[in-house]
Amino acid sequence: MTNKINVITISREYGSGGREIGEKIAKALNIPFYDKVLIDMIAQDCGMAAGYVEEASEKMTMNQAFNISTLGYYSVSPIVENVQVIGEDIFVSQSKIIKDLAEKGPCVIVGRCADYILRERDDVLNVFIHADFEERAKRAVEQYGIEEKNAISVIKKSDKARAKHYAFYCEKKWGNIDNYHLVLNSGKFGIDRSVELILRAVQQ
Amino acid sequence: MTNKINVITISREYGSGGREIGEKIAKALNIPFYDKVLIDMIAQDCGMAAGYVEEASEKMTMNQAFNISTLGYYSVSPIVENVQVIGEDIFVSQSKIIKDLAEKGPCVIVGRCADYILRERDDVLNVFIHADFEERAKRAVEQYGIEEKNAISVIKKSDKARAKHYAFYCEKKWGNIDNYHLVLNSGKFGIDRSVELILRAVQQ
Repeated sequence: MTNKINVITISREYGSGGREIGEKIAKALNIPFYDKVLIDMIAQDCGMAAGYVEEASEKMTMNQAFNISTLGYYSVSPIVENVQVIGEDIFVSQSKIIKDLAEKGPCVIVGRCADYILRERDDVLNVFIHADFEERAKRAVEQYGIEEKNAISVIKKSDKARAKHYAFYCEKKWGNIDNYHLVLNSGKFGIDRSVELILRAVQQ
Repeated sequence: MTNKINVITISREYGSGGREIGEKIAKALNIPFYDKVLIDMIAQDCGMAAGYVEEASEKMTMNQAFNISTLGYYSVSPIVENVQVIGEDIFVSQSKIIKDLAEKGPCVIVGRCADYILRERDDVLNVFIHADFEERAKRAVEQYGIEEKNAISVIKKSDKARAKHYAFYCEKKWGNIDNYHLVLNSGKFGIDRSVELILRAVQQ
């Protein structure tokens, strides 16, 4: 490893505790943590409501991924086309904001294709956090307040949306080993030991 | 992490330095290291020559994977059928030997589907080592003496064979995040820091 790591990107399966891990790393290193606050920054940049930004990104991904995978080409209705344009605007804004943040100094960024957006920097550590379904369902119920009977379907739906979003914008497979420098099963290590291992990986 | 880790399995892309990492871990922990010696143990158990064991496993995988993927069912010529029987004998022996080794005490096992074979034990850490093509090609040339012009094709062929072998015997995708507790890009961290991170992950 020739370069000092300044930026840590965390990609994570739903219910794996990736967000909490990212937050703890940022706290331990005393550097900014960007998670949901990115939505607000993008919304402000695009002149949209934060809720709309979140919804538009998701809808755009779902519709386009469907069109591409089933038809093999873009077949967009006027409504979808509109969502597409908005979605692309959002991604342009998101990319600009994330690149600016990385330029400003050390930070932890959760989700939002940050690993892909920052692929040309060599001071980034790309981390992926995963866990078994059982562990993630437990976490979803206990920590996120998801009803037990719905936990698995919520997990699957969320993973699928993240994978589609990543496939669409980054043209790569979300969760593919090649995209990450360090992958941890948080169910095996637990949250605090995962944090400790990532901190260890960052420190030279 | 509730259980002490006794066995470390290392799966690795060709040229990633996974074998060297495994050897260094075993040395640091002063525990046995099983790599190519497993071939000799299997050969002895099956009453075959070591070279034959290695060749038969590979051939069997290649042929069967081809038959399954292209025809969707087993279509075996007498020659292939013979290789198939031998291949299955080898896998049975390999499974028995690896399970016995894990039962005996702490150790490091490289390759041979050990992560899958030991899937029912909860004292195992499954590690996957990967690296970018460029890093792997460099290693293949400098350390394994592969001709530079052949490096990429040797890497691709080896990865493909490992993936087919794993898919056939374990019915899972080799290199899929879900199979491993810890995945490291040895190009990012280097060999010694990869060793250090794995040792850290093992120590409670």
